[in-house]
Amino acid sequence: MGENVEAKRLPRDRHSDLFHSECPARAVFDRITGRWAPLVLVKLAEGPMRFYELRDQIGRISEKVLSEKLRLLTRDGLVERTVEPTIPPRVSYALTETGHSVAKPLRQLMRWVADHGDAILAAQALHDERS
Amino acid sequence: MGENVEAKRLPRDRHSDLFHSECPARAVFDRITGRWAPLVLVKLAEGPMRFYELRDQIGRISEKVLSEKLRLLTRDGLVERTVEPTIPPRVSYALTETGHSVAKPLRQLMRWVADHGDAILAAQALHDERS
Repeated sequence: MGENVEAKRLPRDRHSDLFHSECPARAVFDRITGRWAPLVLVKLAEGPMRFYELRDQIGRISEKVLSEKLRLLTRDGLVERTVEPTIPPRVSYALTETGHSVAKPLRQLMRWVADHGDAILAAQALHDERS
Repeated sequence: MGENVEAKRLPRDRHSDLFHSECPARAVFDRITGRWAPLVLVKLAEGPMRFYELRDQIGRISEKVLSEKLRLLTRDGLVERTVEPTIPPRVSYALTETGHSVAKPLRQLMRWVADHGDAILAAQALHDERS
C-alpha cells in the first residue's frame, strides 16, 4: 500500500534533472523562459507596477497576452497582485521573493544577449552566405 | 545615399534593449531559451559529443528535432560541427567560444529551476485549490 503511494511520486532527484524526460521542472523552465515571461519578470524587478505601466514598457505586448502572462505568473507564485481599496480600485503587480530570485539569472541571460546578439546575427548572415 | 544605407540599420542601442519592440536581439533570446536549445547547449558544455550520444543524454528528444536544433545552433555560431575523415566519417558537435559563454547563464537558470521548481509546483497547486 505504502509502496503504491511512493510509486506515484517521482524520485526526488528527478525534480532537479532537466535532462530527464519525466522531469516536472521542464515545464517550469519552459514557463520562465517562454515568450514574454522573462520581459515581464525583469521589468517588474524594478518595482511594483500597474497594468498599463507594464504594457507601455514592454514593446509590442498585447493587453490580452500581458494579462494572461500575469495570471500564470501569479499562479506560479512569482508575481503578486494587489488591489488597493480606493475608488476606482488600484491594482498593481509586484514580484514575490521567488520572483525576484528568478529575475537575477534572467537578467544575466538578457545581458548575454545584449552583449552577443550582434555576433549571433553576423554568424547567421555568414552561414547563409556560404550555403 | 549614405543616409539611406544608415536608415536601414537599427540604432545601435536598440540591439541591446529587449524591451524595444523592434529589437533584433529578441529573436536571439527566443532562440537560446526556446524548447530544447538550452538542454543541447548545457549538455555540450561538458565536451564534444557525437549525435547519438547527445540524443541519449537528453530525454525524449527526437532525432529530427535534435538535428534541426543542431543545424540552427551551428548557424548561430554557437555550435561547431566537425567531420573527421575516417571510414565511416566521424561527426561530432562541440560548443564554440560563444556557445560556452551562453551555457554559463543558462546553467544558472537551470540551477534556479532545480532549486525552486518544487516551490513553483506547490504554488500552482495552492492557487488551483483556492480558485
